[in-house]
Amino acid sequence: MLPQSVLISEVGPRDGLQSVKATMPTAHKLAWITALHDAGLREIEVCSFVPAKLLPQMADAAEVVRHAVALPNWTVMALVPNLKGAEAALAAGVHKLTIPVSASEAHSLANVRKSRADMVAEVRSIVAMSHERAPHIKVEVGISTAFGCTLQGHVADDDVMWLATELAEAGVHEVGLSDTTGMANPAQVRRLFQKLQQAVGPKMGAAHMHNTRGLGLANCLAAVDVGVTTFDSSQGGLGGCPYAPGASGNVVTEDLVFMFEAMGVRTGVDLDKLMAARVHLQTGLPNEPIYGMTPLAGLPKHWKTHTHA
Amino acid sequence: MLPQSVLISEVGPRDGLQSVKATMPTAHKLAWITALHDAGLREIEVCSFVPAKLLPQMADAAEVVRHAVALPNWTVMALVPNLKGAEAALAAGVHKLTIPVSASEAHSLANVRKSRADMVAEVRSIVAMSHERAPHIKVEVGISTAFGCTLQGHVADDDVMWLATELAEAGVHEVGLSDTTGMANPAQVRRLFQKLQQAVGPKMGAAHMHNTRGLGLANCLAAVDVGVTTFDSSQGGLGGCPYAPGASGNVVTEDLVFMFEAMGVRTGVDLDKLMAARVHLQTGLPNEPIYGMTPLAGLPKHWKTHTHA
Repeated sequence: MLPQSVLISEVGPRDGLQSVKATMPTAHKLAWITALHDAGLREIEVCSFVPAKLLPQMADAAEVVRHAVALPNWTVMALVPNLKGAEAALAAGVHKLTIPVSASEAHSLANVRKSRADMVAEVRSIVAMSHERAPHIKVEVGISTAFGCTLQGHVADDDVMWLATELAEAGVHEVGLSDTTGMANPAQVRRLFQKLQQAVGPKMGAAHMHNTRGLGLANCLAAVDVGVTTFDSSQGGLGGCPYAPGASGNVVTEDLVFMFEAMGVRTGVDLDKLMAARVHLQTGLPNEPIYGMTPLAGLPKHWKTHTHA
Repeated sequence: MLPQSVLISEVGPRDGLQSVKATMPTAHKLAWITALHDAGLREIEVCSFVPAKLLPQMADAAEVVRHAVALPNWTVMALVPNLKGAEAALAAGVHKLTIPVSASEAHSLANVRKSRADMVAEVRSIVAMSHERAPHIKVEVGISTAFGCTLQGHVADDDVMWLATELAEAGVHEVGLSDTTGMANPAQVRRLFQKLQQAVGPKMGAAHMHNTRGLGLANCLAAVDVGVTTFDSSQGGLGGCPYAPGASGNVVTEDLVFMFEAMGVRTGVDLDKLMAARVHLQTGLPNEPIYGMTPLAGLPKHWKTHTHA
């Protein structure tokens, strides 16, 4: 049983722009975000609040947030790795915070120099601070390396569920699972999200899939089959590749929207407008390859005129 | 419930080589086919028996078949569009014939200059001839444009099932469904293969999916979910693109095998050997782009050492 609609959560301006070396000029970012909004996207991760020394691509985070939240009827998120980032994001006016917490202890230490338990404590502080200063703000966590880790290899399901339960108890509104390393397969996706629903119930959050080995859409299909209704993806598959040139990072928003719309699952996104928004990536990051099969092939003939499902 | 194993039916030497302008030299074809056999593939479509004037890439069809059938423990197929081709294929020694029959009347007329009803009659002649001359030979049909047609647009499910039933009654051993135009979506794939199983029972054949809009693996996942156990694919996604450069044709064998093996569904294929076989594509068709995300990214760390499922 497919849902009538799903929420596509665009992560390109954060996850994508953060992972390329070049910095997209602020004016291009703002135009791109506006175009994504015009295409009908209703949730977007626009930036990270991290020290500009570490990520110069995100130095304009506050300005980007102020622009995005001025557009109506969508949820503007920022990634924050710690309490300090969360305070800056709230000050800028975001609607929602997203915090990455690794299921792999090795990745957690490498990525944020904190153990998983310390990250749970950090999340607890963020929730408390947010609740006090801005009680309407939602906090989500994406559990990274949930499907495997390039540092430690196998990640046990039990580790992921322990962490998900701790985070739900810490008061976050949503807990999603991220295939940070492109190691997930559809059987594993179904199994883990089913366990996640048992563990956190209605707090089950987004599937954040990568297309490293071409399984991105198949993994999203597996997730929707077991009740996931929010999907992270990135326009043009922006997200670079930790492995090899040509192997894209995040699931491509254009292809993901095409898949759901073709199945009759509504996304609210206008595919023509979405594909037109790629121009901002091309002009704002002229030397960066952008991906997507649907934009290359175009929409099928008669797309508008027959029942897609 | 996933099956314990699936059959990967490699179509690159036929579907792939037929769709590129360059002709792979025979010696390269033979070396490539041997490498695919070594990798553990157990079914392969090695050529078409069509006039060399129409498809010079397939002029060496008989020699290719003789080479392939000398390799042990696999099924060697040839595509035949008509009785004359079928006779030539049997004379060369193939194990199995595959006949394309369009569900779209417009595509049938454009592709083979015959109506669908005339093609059913042609299939009946081929089955009779094959039964008489070589009763051990299997005959399969792939119903092309089963999921939509670029000429006529929408293809009704009822048209596909009418044709499948006619073909099963004509005596073919297997009836598969082909997404010739890259228009299939997972909901449609599930629906049509479920109807196909109701219509032809154990004669349900292969899912032949294209990756035109990136949905190839998702469509294969959808098919395995409803009981399909044979999947056509092409090494390197060879198959060109009727739409645009960069948009590959067939599902990439390497990615498909990776998906199934990662899920714990056995294919019998050794992924390292399979990826090594790409060298024959690179040397035999030096100017042709070849696709595949898994070959670019490489296998995940610890691939051999942990349980894939």
